Amino acid sequence: MPPASPADARRTAVDVAALLERGRTLATPVLREAAGRLAPPMDTVAAYHFGWIDAHGNPTEGDGGKAVRPALAVLSAEVAGADPKTGVPGAVAVELVHNFSLLHDDLMDGDEQRRHRDTVWKVHGPAQAILVGDALFALAYEVLLESGTAGAGRAARRLTAATRALIDGQAQDISYEHRDRVSVEECLEMEGNKTGALLACASSVGAVLGGAGEKDADTLERYGYHLGLAFQAVDDLLGIWGDPVATGKQTWSDLRQRKKSLPVVAALAAGGSASERLGELLAADAKSTDFANFSEEEFAARAALIEEAGGREWTAAEARRQHTIAIEALGDVDMPEQVREKFTALADFVVVRKR
Amino acid sequence: MPPASPADARRTAVDVAALLERGRTLATPVLREAAGRLAPPMDTVAAYHFGWIDAHGNPTEGDGGKAVRPALAVLSAEVAGADPKTGVPGAVAVELVHNFSLLHDDLMDGDEQRRHRDTVWKVHGPAQAILVGDALFALAYEVLLESGTAGAGRAARRLTAATRALIDGQAQDISYEHRDRVSVEECLEMEGNKTGALLACASSVGAVLGGAGEKDADTLERYGYHLGLAFQAVDDLLGIWGDPVATGKQTWSDLRQRKKSLPVVAALAAGGSASERLGELLAADAKSTDFANFSEEEFAARAALIEEAGGREWTAAEARRQHTIAIEALGDVDMPEQVREKFTALADFVVVRKR
Repeated sequence: MPPASPADARRTAVDVAALLERGRTLATPVLREAAGRLAPPMDTVAAYHFGWIDAHGNPTEGDGGKAVRPALAVLSAEVAGADPKTGVPGAVAVELVHNFSLLHDDLMDGDEQRRHRDTVWKVHGPAQAILVGDALFALAYEVLLESGTAGAGRAARRLTAATRALIDGQAQDISYEHRDRVSVEECLEMEGNKTGALLACASSVGAVLGGAGEKDADTLERYGYHLGLAFQAVDDLLGIWGDPVATGKQTWSDLRQRKKSLPVVAALAAGGSASERLGELLAADAKSTDFANFSEEEFAARAALIEEAGGREWTAAEARRQHTIAIEALGDVDMPEQVREKFTALADFVVVRKR
Repeated sequence: MPPASPADARRTAVDVAALLERGRTLATPVLREAAGRLAPPMDTVAAYHFGWIDAHGNPTEGDGGKAVRPALAVLSAEVAGADPKTGVPGAVAVELVHNFSLLHDDLMDGDEQRRHRDTVWKVHGPAQAILVGDALFALAYEVLLESGTAGAGRAARRLTAATRALIDGQAQDISYEHRDRVSVEECLEMEGNKTGALLACASSVGAVLGGAGEKDADTLERYGYHLGLAFQAVDDLLGIWGDPVATGKQTWSDLRQRKKSLPVVAALAAGGSASERLGELLAADAKSTDFANFSEEEFAARAALIEEAGGREWTAAEARRQHTIAIEALGDVDMPEQVREKFTALADFVVVRKR
């Protein structure tokens, strides 16, 4: 985690929890109404995916996730001097695209669990995972375009660009699985596509709907893109060294999945004896038929080598570096000071979070 | 097939082959350029799907299909007094959405062949079929929205509505597979969603891009929707009684797939002794473990019962009925007489085609 920094001092000024709650409160009813437009049984499958019902159809208290994207979308409307509500169709469209990609990625990757629950394809079958993913993707455009404004058309173009990047990132992720080595640059490009592009869209969509110019929208996207890279670097750290109680994931989660995440690729690229030993171990692991039975100690040994080779510190520094670029981008957009402080606080939250 | 009608006389006035060729010639280069924007290996998978290359990557002469949708899209631009080229982004977007749905439907349905070739999921795997389908869907919006005009935003809304209907239709198709009986009304609703909605969009998208009003666009959609139902009724006839040489499908193709197409559901709904015998046979077939080994004679016997129960004649009459509604809708839109004649000729072509 980054050491004490100006970010820690700033955190007292803005109530991040309230910012996240505002995005969630504004977006969730519209998201639920939109998902409710789907014909049966797709409405039920979507409600299960979003955590609103369990596999038997009974209502549940979903945790709703961190809700960083909706918070950014409604906040960005304020850049254009518009009411935060102006950003809601954008917030919902971005959430719909994000969840369409989760439904399809979980099936493509064969992932059986997400947020402690069986994934949609496990519960409702592959066809429903494909179909409801498609439906959420189409709903994103429906929600975004139904206002019929010029801003909606511009926002839809940016959403399309983000979605194309998201799909490119998934294509890269799939191709990297079949390779022994992935460079740090390739990993960053993939993470920029999979995480950065949609956070970029979330950070500009409210402003675009509120009538902001293209240059300001581009700059807000730059903020969001680098925030996304910082977010993913922290995610990659938590994926190895996160507290299972806080993250809700298994210990050494990303190592168990043999994920070529930033700490791993950075450690492999670092050179030196720990890096070389790690490379030999992971190459052997890739061929091992006993991998599923590996003990805690075996994963801990790999994590220690990654740390010894410098992969942990490099990734933490990368999170801080991307965080700094994101904050600096904010300086290129004219906005009320208290709006700027909120964007900064959300960026600070992303890099210090424990889950 | 429908008997001799005024349609036969009209067919001499307009060169339908030239109309179809115009749509194909205008749309194909833009479609190829758009698919070429995809990152590897998605560009290759898309090119395989479109029939531009074979499974080894060698260029092939694809037959390009009937190309009714692109022909309608560029023709509809002329309703607004615009150059046919104005409709091209719409034609390409509609083709991209159509092909996204084919990629996903073939995987969901487990279909291994399309147009005499292995389907994408058979050649490139399920993950690529999902991913490239998603990419084509996103590309549709990219191509449609990149002009940035108000018409493009309106066209995107209509494309979204059509896509939502397409997905609803696929959901119905999947659910009907698990049921013994489907009513004629349910079958028509499903076919309207799966085929009518996108032909409706194709028939209006050029006009919308050319600046036509919403009322005219709605009326053109009505033409296209009913044309789609006529198209599908003819497809359902060809799926049972079509000449394999002309259709490129197996004999009794839809019966082999146990498709609950219009002739079948109409025959089952008709009542009488042939209808009842058909119902008993199909119920037994559904449980048969020997279905894959059925002889030509066994399928011919089922086709004969469908015909005896009136399913063939009912479907042919339905094609004529939908064709008439489509033509009548044209009367509610103000357009040059020669444009109206072309729309009429395309509708005539759809109901008299042999493949």
